[in-house]
Amino acid sequence: MSPAIHTYSYDKLGLNAVYAPFDVGLDQLESIVEGFKHWGVVGYNVGIPNKFEVAQYLDELSPVAELSGAVNCVKVENGRSVGYNTDGPGFVSNLKRLGFDPSRKRVTLLGFDEMGLAVTMALALESVESLDVFVRNAFIEESAVDCIQRLRLQEGICINLHDFADYEELCDCIASSDLLVNSLRPGSSVLDELIADAPAIFSDGLMVADAVHTREISELVEQAKQMGLKTASGIESLIAQAALCEKIWFGVEMPIDSVLNRFGGVLGSNK
Amino acid sequence: MSPAIHTYSYDKLGLNAVYAPFDVGLDQLESIVEGFKHWGVVGYNVGIPNKFEVAQYLDELSPVAELSGAVNCVKVENGRSVGYNTDGPGFVSNLKRLGFDPSRKRVTLLGFDEMGLAVTMALALESVESLDVFVRNAFIEESAVDCIQRLRLQEGICINLHDFADYEELCDCIASSDLLVNSLRPGSSVLDELIADAPAIFSDGLMVADAVHTREISELVEQAKQMGLKTASGIESLIAQAALCEKIWFGVEMPIDSVLNRFGGVLGSNK
Repeated sequence: MSPAIHTYSYDKLGLNAVYAPFDVGLDQLESIVEGFKHWGVVGYNVGIPNKFEVAQYLDELSPVAELSGAVNCVKVENGRSVGYNTDGPGFVSNLKRLGFDPSRKRVTLLGFDEMGLAVTMALALESVESLDVFVRNAFIEESAVDCIQRLRLQEGICINLHDFADYEELCDCIASSDLLVNSLRPGSSVLDELIADAPAIFSDGLMVADAVHTREISELVEQAKQMGLKTASGIESLIAQAALCEKIWFGVEMPIDSVLNRFGGVLGSNK
Repeated sequence: MSPAIHTYSYDKLGLNAVYAPFDVGLDQLESIVEGFKHWGVVGYNVGIPNKFEVAQYLDELSPVAELSGAVNCVKVENGRSVGYNTDGPGFVSNLKRLGFDPSRKRVTLLGFDEMGLAVTMALALESVESLDVFVRNAFIEESAVDCIQRLRLQEGICINLHDFADYEELCDCIASSDLLVNSLRPGSSVLDELIADAPAIFSDGLMVADAVHTREISELVEQAKQMGLKTASGIESLIAQAALCEKIWFGVEMPIDSVLNRFGGVLGSNK
């Protein structure tokens, strides 16, 4: 959706710019990064799997990009490539727009893929009180463990890793949380269980947010909506990170309300 | 102007496509040609000086591109790059739109840069009766001489090279021509002489056409306009070649009238 979002925004802003998709394989990544430094390109986004590999070809990294090793946004300046990560900051920016300030809040996170890690880092930098991360079979990549360790040391945040198998602990964590972040793809059995038990577990003040950038909202967030809780969708988070990219590339303020109005309409849960 | 022309046309056609400029140095030409074969790019134009060098990196050339050695339009098909030259054919296509059929006509051409060569080839393929080409100091690149020689042999066209210094011969050629093509940049002293003498030399049936793709019309064409002769501008020729590119890339018919209406307005002579 990014080409549509940015093109619409550039049009609204009167910016003489286009955003176009290129299907770049890992074997061509180095040469396109080198080329983009010289061809008059202002900046670009990098998708999966290139976002995990592109850092080695860049000249400079933002602290968050450095910490996570994932770069989804690059700015070209004076023939140098500077890498950023706007996924986590976009997620947080959207929470704040919706009136939720993560500072000193308790957070439970479901899943710890690349987006889960990005959200964890962004929340840590916002000084949340605690982060309880649930993963399947306690499996987590070594690089992510390193990253969590550094966050613990640098930011002094209490980050705990748990296994989904410990369902009772999951329920306890959610019951005492201010924010539940869903970074799981649909079809996970633990989600079905949680949805059924939500009325018993979710407190009135809980906010439930999708981290994954899909147009559809998850059944978990839909359930929370139906219970009258505050929710955030993945598409809102995608739009918020797009706004951060436009700020980085052009120094402009994306007309977020207008873009949300055009593209932010969620499509119902992804059953 | 090409990004503006194509973007306007794609919008009119409802094509989901963008046309964006990249500033590609000769040293990056090979890598971008290789990249464009894989990144989902439909096709692209190539400007000076890359248009003279790009052929060696392509997988196939159209006959005109092969003959001239200049490629201004590339189509990517199934991971292969096919080179075309639409400059000359666009010039001819515009003449035909204006009601001038070059077949069996006598043509005088001023200047023999890359555009002059492209126009010469396209006119030769339309079976003109004769082509009298005037150049400065009889200087002409060896590759162009080769090309003319091949045209003479293949198409049986009478192509003569002259020196601008032979002004009397220039006047004689123009007086007996159906078409005068100006491929000179402004500021040439021979143009000033010709403009002054135009009322005495230009016959009533003469058509005068700019070959160079500038937005401004030449003083020579402006003079011809004032004399009530048929004329063709460089911007019209640019738009006609853009239409050929869109046909090659997408198989669509550019809405030429609409594009001419938006961009074809000439800006007066480039004094």
